[in-house]
Amino acid sequence: MNNLMPEFLKLVPPSEALALLMSSLPVREPVEETIDAFHSTGRVTAQEIRAPHALPTFSRSSVDGYAVRARDTFGVCESIPGFLTITGEVPMGAKPAFSIETGQAALIHTGGMLPQNADAVVMLEYTEQTRSKEISIMRGVAPGENIILLGEDVQEGQLVVPQGIQIRPVEIGGFMALGITELRVAILPRIGIISSGDEVIPPEQEPGPGQVRDVNSNALSALVTEAGGEPVLYGIIQDKLELMKDIAAKALSECQAVVITAGSSASARDMTAETIASLGVPGVLVHGVNIRPGKPTILAVCDGKAVIGLPGNPVSAMVVAGLFVVPVIRRLLGVRVERPRAACMGRLTVNVPSQAGREDWIPVKLIPSPDWSSTGEDWLAEPIFAKSNLIFSLSAADGLFCIPLDATGVDMGELVQVFLL
Amino acid sequence: MNNLMPEFLKLVPPSEALALLMSSLPVREPVEETIDAFHSTGRVTAQEIRAPHALPTFSRSSVDGYAVRARDTFGVCESIPGFLTITGEVPMGAKPAFSIETGQAALIHTGGMLPQNADAVVMLEYTEQTRSKEISIMRGVAPGENIILLGEDVQEGQLVVPQGIQIRPVEIGGFMALGITELRVAILPRIGIISSGDEVIPPEQEPGPGQVRDVNSNALSALVTEAGGEPVLYGIIQDKLELMKDIAAKALSECQAVVITAGSSASARDMTAETIASLGVPGVLVHGVNIRPGKPTILAVCDGKAVIGLPGNPVSAMVVAGLFVVPVIRRLLGVRVERPRAACMGRLTVNVPSQAGREDWIPVKLIPSPDWSSTGEDWLAEPIFAKSNLIFSLSAADGLFCIPLDATGVDMGELVQVFLL
Repeated sequence: MNNLMPEFLKLVPPSEALALLMSSLPVREPVEETIDAFHSTGRVTAQEIRAPHALPTFSRSSVDGYAVRARDTFGVCESIPGFLTITGEVPMGAKPAFSIETGQAALIHTGGMLPQNADAVVMLEYTEQTRSKEISIMRGVAPGENIILLGEDVQEGQLVVPQGIQIRPVEIGGFMALGITELRVAILPRIGIISSGDEVIPPEQEPGPGQVRDVNSNALSALVTEAGGEPVLYGIIQDKLELMKDIAAKALSECQAVVITAGSSASARDMTAETIASLGVPGVLVHGVNIRPGKPTILAVCDGKAVIGLPGNPVSAMVVAGLFVVPVIRRLLGVRVERPRAACMGRLTVNVPSQAGREDWIPVKLIPSPDWSSTGEDWLAEPIFAKSNLIFSLSAADGLFCIPLDATGVDMGELVQVFLL
Repeated sequence: MNNLMPEFLKLVPPSEALALLMSSLPVREPVEETIDAFHSTGRVTAQEIRAPHALPTFSRSSVDGYAVRARDTFGVCESIPGFLTITGEVPMGAKPAFSIETGQAALIHTGGMLPQNADAVVMLEYTEQTRSKEISIMRGVAPGENIILLGEDVQEGQLVVPQGIQIRPVEIGGFMALGITELRVAILPRIGIISSGDEVIPPEQEPGPGQVRDVNSNALSALVTEAGGEPVLYGIIQDKLELMKDIAAKALSECQAVVITAGSSASARDMTAETIASLGVPGVLVHGVNIRPGKPTILAVCDGKAVIGLPGNPVSAMVVAGLFVVPVIRRLLGVRVERPRAACMGRLTVNVPSQAGREDWIPVKLIPSPDWSSTGEDWLAEPIFAKSNLIFSLSAADGLFCIPLDATGVDMGELVQVFLL
């Protein structure tokens, strides 16, 4: 055999490769910025957030009814109702001007502030107005009943949102309730993206014979954005080592991590490896991962920054980016509390064989199963078998499932966890 | 009983309520706009997209090796190798200047264009260079082996992305491959958001006694954005019917749908209902849904636009918005192909009772189960029992699961589908 380059150092299992990459990155706090809390969905908190005051800020009624002293209602029932004097009506949005004394009650609406000395609310349904200033009560209440106590949602100083978690619309609701209109969040980490290959041309150009359009720059850019990073495109570099090294060094200096997709030829792949190896110490950690698609992946740390060499083939590039680039972005964002990943359980429609010792990620289409229901969705998972070079095989898929390293396949009818694309 | 308004027309099951709302909305194509394809993640296609040309645009090698005529290799093996004359090397990104005749082979790299008359590629591993212009071949190949044929990914004119589907990063990859740099997508539907209640103040203000900050405007705004709409805030309206009617009419004229969150008092809720009823025909379709949280929901269609009255309590508002406002937005976006919703299966840690005849949505925290694995994630679902008025009960949750209308609860240990927040 000739011409066969020693392309792979040693194939490393994916989880081991990721652990090695992560443990080789320096432990740094993310760079922070202040943003308005209204538009913070998807951002990652750079500080823990504690309640500046208790919530609710006053004891409120959770129903429409009458605020009472609970002991005044003890023992009443429909056959032996209790009678109370109406002392007033609690205005919405203001402190009632009266307190509740023994034998008294006040009309209160949901959300109304509990008058002083009242400790429960009798629902309107269990009362009847018997005279102009009197009600009868047909059901007793315990102290605290139908009330939301001051501080029942959160206490002053309580941790409400931890540091290093991604913000969702419900957190924004919480910030509003507490009057938190500004937030410290991690800046969007800049991820440099470089494409390479003599055969690769920009997407807006018409390919000549032998040429292919650059799929990876923009698809990865979209993925980086979705993962919470800011993509910075460095274009398509021809297969010239010095040029590639210059651009890669520039990207590394301007960004917090760099992703290079190799051209598809062996020499282009070698050039990518050589470029990455030249960028800084410790350099290449992993060259070759025991995964399909994605074997020719390079993981490196150069002068404290992650540099990842992705296979040029777009399906591999997207799958591998999900497994290695996304965790790097989340690390740069300072994510400490990972939210559960979006996934669906699906029942495999066919046997899917795999080679033991290799982790396989199989694209699948999810099809509603015959016992479909809208509240407990049930899916059939139909694998899409296609050469991994075909981008539209991935576009036809809803997600990917994993056949672990040690398995030789998954049988038809088994439930698999499909991570959504 | 007195003071008890006939607040609810009739409690309607949620699925029936949604179906009624959807069937009462006019069937309209969404308004379209042209955007650049690079930044189209999350947008919804307004037209079906067909391949302008076949992909790949030429037959390519999928390995490093030698392009051959397959029949020249039939029957060869390690003990009886075949010998072929090297006629050249295929350049990357260009058409080879030669064709392959009987007895010839050409060095080709992954992604290289197949020379004329070649119909297979022998992997480098199974060849050996025997003389300066000769190789021996140790394994035969079938026609088409190690080749991606012209059009194997997609044929010219083939439907690659349907109309009415949300674009993901992988679709962007597909657009790039086909040179599609601009797209027709649905415009972001404008969703008017109105808060109401005399007790409600803007989040940046300090609440006085009895006052609460407006949680809903901004939390709903974030939810609308996430669902693909453009929120338009109309502020907090005091409980004055004419004012509320004026603002709601303005919102309805400027937006494609309107969401009003009621103040918490019965009179504020009545005012919301009266306002919505006045906005146009057919008006209120559903007043009261058999759901917890969210019973006091109003669904209406006014002059062809959806108007939804949400409960003022923020947890109810968020849950109900997910069930009714999000589908309205997706309808306005012209979504025809729904992608699977993000969900996780979790095993309940306690019994959760429910009332038959009511659909319950229970917030849960997902905790990695003891038999956790990174590829097939396994969760324990721990319900968060809290009064539904407490926004931080939702913020502590990863998602919600549903106890259907006819169930009286779900037992500890059962698997439930948790829809992520």
